[in-house]
Amino acid sequence: MKLFVWTLTLTSIAFAQKPLTIASQGSFFVGGEYKAMPATPGRGGAPGSPGDITVNQMYVQYQIPVNGAQHVPVVMVHGCCLSSKTWETTPDGRMGWNEYFVRKDRSVYLADQSSRARSGFDPSTIAAVKAGTVPPSQLPNIFAASHQVAWSIFRFGPEFGKPFPDEQFPIEALDELYKQMIPDLNSTLPNPNPTWKNMAALAVKLNGAILMGHSESGFFPEQAALIDPKGIKGLISIEMPCPELKPEEIAALAKIPTLVMFGDHLGDVQGFATWPASFESCNKFVQQLKDKGGDAEMMSLPKMGIKGNSHMLMQDKNNLQLADLILAWIDGHVEAKKKTR
Amino acid sequence: MKLFVWTLTLTSIAFAQKPLTIASQGSFFVGGEYKAMPATPGRGGAPGSPGDITVNQMYVQYQIPVNGAQHVPVVMVHGCCLSSKTWETTPDGRMGWNEYFVRKDRSVYLADQSSRARSGFDPSTIAAVKAGTVPPSQLPNIFAASHQVAWSIFRFGPEFGKPFPDEQFPIEALDELYKQMIPDLNSTLPNPNPTWKNMAALAVKLNGAILMGHSESGFFPEQAALIDPKGIKGLISIEMPCPELKPEEIAALAKIPTLVMFGDHLGDVQGFATWPASFESCNKFVQQLKDKGGDAEMMSLPKMGIKGNSHMLMQDKNNLQLADLILAWIDGHVEAKKKTR
Repeated sequence: MKLFVWTLTLTSIAFAQKPLTIASQGSFFVGGEYKAMPATPGRGGAPGSPGDITVNQMYVQYQIPVNGAQHVPVVMVHGCCLSSKTWETTPDGRMGWNEYFVRKDRSVYLADQSSRARSGFDPSTIAAVKAGTVPPSQLPNIFAASHQVAWSIFRFGPEFGKPFPDEQFPIEALDELYKQMIPDLNSTLPNPNPTWKNMAALAVKLNGAILMGHSESGFFPEQAALIDPKGIKGLISIEMPCPELKPEEIAALAKIPTLVMFGDHLGDVQGFATWPASFESCNKFVQQLKDKGGDAEMMSLPKMGIKGNSHMLMQDKNNLQLADLILAWIDGHVEAKKKTR
Repeated sequence: MKLFVWTLTLTSIAFAQKPLTIASQGSFFVGGEYKAMPATPGRGGAPGSPGDITVNQMYVQYQIPVNGAQHVPVVMVHGCCLSSKTWETTPDGRMGWNEYFVRKDRSVYLADQSSRARSGFDPSTIAAVKAGTVPPSQLPNIFAASHQVAWSIFRFGPEFGKPFPDEQFPIEALDELYKQMIPDLNSTLPNPNPTWKNMAALAVKLNGAILMGHSESGFFPEQAALIDPKGIKGLISIEMPCPELKPEEIAALAKIPTLVMFGDHLGDVQGFATWPASFESCNKFVQQLKDKGGDAEMMSLPKMGIKGNSHMLMQDKNNLQLADLILAWIDGHVEAKKKTR
């Protein structure tokens, strides 16, 4: 395994230095609805007038490689307190999964969750509280994860400031990770979360796509498939709790190849002791899919001999090795099926 | 002029269909400081603990073309209630300035303003009001421009729903523009705006760059140059008011080539009658730079025979024609100087 990893890393570095040719790139939105806004203050507090705004849309940025049509497109959706920056250049300046997948001839679509980053959010309640028409208690819980909380949830070490000896996250670049942590306004969203519907609609628009989620969005691919499985060719869920589903929901999801991935040190961090429970809930989910005849796989990295991976495994030092595991799974489980259809 | 425009458009379409080769791409942050946060609720309202967050950072996404070293990099910063989406694929699906400039061998850096989109924002005051430690009157003015306000400010027509006969904005794709309009949290920023300092630092990091701003950020290039002109090789300011400056500030800015651009119908919209005043203030600014020996130019598109351009001129139907005007200005005024050094 060691030699394999080393050879792969050297190959990846040479790979990263070559120019990249893409057939097309751009950005667009999926979803979004009009919402009437009462008069709110304008810039500088100037009086505003009532009007409509658009909410719940999802911003998507894409690159299609020259040989993109040979593979199923991959949609990547970030987790809590983060944006699509998750998948780009790592905090220590290495290639992210977005570009690596493109260099492996996959069309990649990065989505900012509805209510986050370039997708905007619904500011109505905050404006109403400021205007005095709604009490402060109704303000949304804006979740801003502190550095200290991130250290624990993202499993960088047994206590704040002390990394695990085999930690794969580039701890020296931690300040750059902290800069990509942004306020999470998902509590302002309606239920069900419009990102789920938007992800399903994106897969239909692309005439078939693999949906990948991480952490907060780890189960979004499955939630999207429960709304509309039509365009969804594969589900990739990274590090999240798996909720209890009804038998008919399991049966519906069992029709789509599913990969779940977890990193290391699940039980070794203070404060947030939920990782072992999340892992167990997903082991159960994978088994339920298999029991219904589904093609489902749990990749526990430490059980495969890959040690020290954090929750931010797409940014860890061995991130391209992990990307290769996913690409190989897609080839064998999603695209092998595609070819026989 | 007509024939020129037509030929150019045909060339641009052929151009857009060719694959694009880039030497490198990625994203990073400029600036950002730690800030201590009191305990705030976590996700679902669970009790949180105090800790640090990072605020005032600026997210930057870039592409460097294979021949990028032959030209000065261009930094593009969006306006109010918008993100870097401004410069990407237009609402009706045509190529944006970001990719067009890359195809013209320019390295392009797109920045989300500090407190917007992938740069995050400081949620402290909203959290403090929810916690009851600060009164609701201290909530920030979050500026969410309505469709109706945008119609008027962006100069789509004389009244809401009625476009100008020669309107260059792709009105049929208006819903897609509305989706990229997101809440503006600049009122949460300290003074001076950290984006100015971050833009100046970015120009230094790039060993020289042209800074371009639009609307709310139209004068940010100049504000950045007043903080630190070291890396700034050119200033491009599109459609904004020009503030009154001190003589020593004018003298400092007169050392940097400056282009100001305004579209059409400045006096033809209801409600926001400030466009003619903005235009006049910038005419005065350009004249002040010239009086100090500066290389400054006001491009008033209608005076050049280019009619019907909206405030969102980088998305208008003739957007690539306007990009060519800017590229020619860079060649003649920024890079001609560079070559003789």
